[in-house]
Amino acid sequence: MNHLAAMNCSIARALAEVGERWSLLIVREAIMGSTRFEEFQGRLNIARNILSARLASLVGAGILSRTPTRPAARTYDYRLTRKGEDLFPVVVALLQWGDRWLDEGAGPPVVLLEASTGGPLKAVVTSYDQDVRSIALSDLGIAPGRGADARTLKRLKGSSPPQ
Amino acid sequence: MNHLAAMNCSIARALAEVGERWSLLIVREAIMGSTRFEEFQGRLNIARNILSARLASLVGAGILSRTPTRPAARTYDYRLTRKGEDLFPVVVALLQWGDRWLDEGAGPPVVLLEASTGGPLKAVVTSYDQDVRSIALSDLGIAPGRGADARTLKRLKGSSPPQ
Repeated sequence: MNHLAAMNCSIARALAEVGERWSLLIVREAIMGSTRFEEFQGRLNIARNILSARLASLVGAGILSRTPTRPAARTYDYRLTRKGEDLFPVVVALLQWGDRWLDEGAGPPVVLLEASTGGPLKAVVTSYDQDVRSIALSDLGIAPGRGADARTLKRLKGSSPPQ
Repeated sequence: MNHLAAMNCSIARALAEVGERWSLLIVREAIMGSTRFEEFQGRLNIARNILSARLASLVGAGILSRTPTRPAARTYDYRLTRKGEDLFPVVVALLQWGDRWLDEGAGPPVVLLEASTGGPLKAVVTSYDQDVRSIALSDLGIAPGRGADARTLKRLKGSSPPQ
């Protein structure tokens, strides 16, 4: 999508890199701790050829790094780069919008917590204002929400539910 | 993308509605004040058939409302609903990420201002923390940034540059 990348607009440039909908779900999975092709594939239930293409594109954009799991191995670990970690506010903003408008009355499937306190995350976009603390990925905990289904509960087993 | 909408994940559900890359650019244009088909078409330089499809999908999702420009007119105004306005933090998060990682050293094309003060916007995702003020669309001003090209400057003529 060179047309978007060439627009004099940071939103268009951002969407040129992560505007394909699987891309941000792969970033979500990486935030949740997935690193292997098979983990992404199983958890997102995405076609293997599409996942391959999206991973290659995210690596090409410098959003994920790709390194062999062992020297000379043919399997790889995919991890967020600093640029990829910086997508955290985008993912949180989508999560909150989905929680608010698309929960079908069941409540949120997952709840973000501040890891250090276990309290609800103060989810803040990196701000122009120095007073507002910016949340880093390492501050994050995840717990099942009211709308969690069996699969979500199983995956997050051992996480503390929010108060 | 019913597969995404059915996932027990607010991010996947959100991307089922706005994950096509033109969708969030159309929301951006609506935030910038566009209401007519021709305005969206000219400013985004998007194919007419794609724009028609995306507008219909955003109206179907309750993100845009569509009303005749005059009684019985066959032209329409597209405006953000409350649900659509709530996408503001998503758009700002993408903008900030693009500003940080994709400005090609030229600086940001546009700068968001707090309309009431003219100062840089404290761009904050609606927060779990009551102390953090949530920014509404009505708080927004837009000015050219260091990376603005001639077209952006022309469009934003009369806006105050940031201090």
